[in-house]
Amino acid sequence: MTTDALVLDAAAQDLLFREARTANTFTDEPVTEEQVQAIYDLVKYGPTAFNQQPLRVVLVRSAEGRDRLVQHLADGNKAKTAAAPLVAILAADNEFHEELPTQFPHFPQAKDVFFAERSVREQSARLNGALQAAYFIIGVRAAGLAAGPMTGYDAEGINKEFFGDGEHSVLAVVNIGKPGEDAWFPRSPRLEYDQVVTTV
Amino acid sequence: MTTDALVLDAAAQDLLFREARTANTFTDEPVTEEQVQAIYDLVKYGPTAFNQQPLRVVLVRSAEGRDRLVQHLADGNKAKTAAAPLVAILAADNEFHEELPTQFPHFPQAKDVFFAERSVREQSARLNGALQAAYFIIGVRAAGLAAGPMTGYDAEGINKEFFGDGEHSVLAVVNIGKPGEDAWFPRSPRLEYDQVVTTV
Repeated sequence: MTTDALVLDAAAQDLLFREARTANTFTDEPVTEEQVQAIYDLVKYGPTAFNQQPLRVVLVRSAEGRDRLVQHLADGNKAKTAAAPLVAILAADNEFHEELPTQFPHFPQAKDVFFAERSVREQSARLNGALQAAYFIIGVRAAGLAAGPMTGYDAEGINKEFFGDGEHSVLAVVNIGKPGEDAWFPRSPRLEYDQVVTTV
Repeated sequence: MTTDALVLDAAAQDLLFREARTANTFTDEPVTEEQVQAIYDLVKYGPTAFNQQPLRVVLVRSAEGRDRLVQHLADGNKAKTAAAPLVAILAADNEFHEELPTQFPHFPQAKDVFFAERSVREQSARLNGALQAAYFIIGVRAAGLAAGPMTGYDAEGINKEFFGDGEHSVLAVVNIGKPGEDAWFPRSPRLEYDQVVTTV
């Protein structure tokens, strides 16, 4: 149902939400560096608390990198990830506060006042990194591509394999490309408005 | 910079990301029930793991509800929240698994196989609820409104005040309306592509 209560045009609604689907198969068409740069240049503007921007992205392009990733995935995610044109590992940088003096210029003390404790940073990075992961998925769709986000993996294994510094926490792994044959299941239902929204 | 590498039209890019800003002041124009329904009807399609949809929304419309909320906010968030046309409390339902048999019909056993443990559900609900919180912010913008998301509050206080069941965890509080006078700070910088994205 498209509605006059939205300003966003119907084609954009379809592209980003109504027709967009999580893809499990892809064509062989490559996803270019230019496309990923355009996605980032759009979604970097999505809001985060204190403009903390904890999201970090590892693009897995080499065959060796793909092998290193696939070994840590749940069995049901291995084949489709091995075959996807591009795979992005989305992670939260738990040391994001180092960038706050430049990234949050109207209160540069935020780094020390609010984020001196690692446990506080981890919780904040996980929440805000997840917001940015969602913006990234929307950005993939904005580029006319399909995303296949997954959380079925050994998170500690991926953290060690790709971020040896102990400072990053994987949030999701996302297959990216043009949807292939039988790319998705039938759309699952969604909760009704009254199951989700209450008013006080 | 708009680019040919995106399919999403330039007006939609501006509406959702490039021109959209976090608002701190609002006009008196009300946010209608129809607008919130249209926002939900769009963003409900955003993907979550196992289609778990943990996001729950409390719309704070009454003066009494506003008072109950504002007391739990950080001082810097109180005045703007008291004055916003609409405030939405976004929370994760840690008992989302009860809905999986209907919401994830191609593997209805997911409820028991993957989500029998509360700690697993909490972690999953927080991540996927944050994805949905980001979709919701995008949806507010799609309705031509400005969002003012905040995480500066006493989370335990809000959880007890609005979700007495111990089963919900607040993720963000979002002021919503048409931007008012001096609605935002100058745009803060964003991290460069090379600071965020690496390739293996």
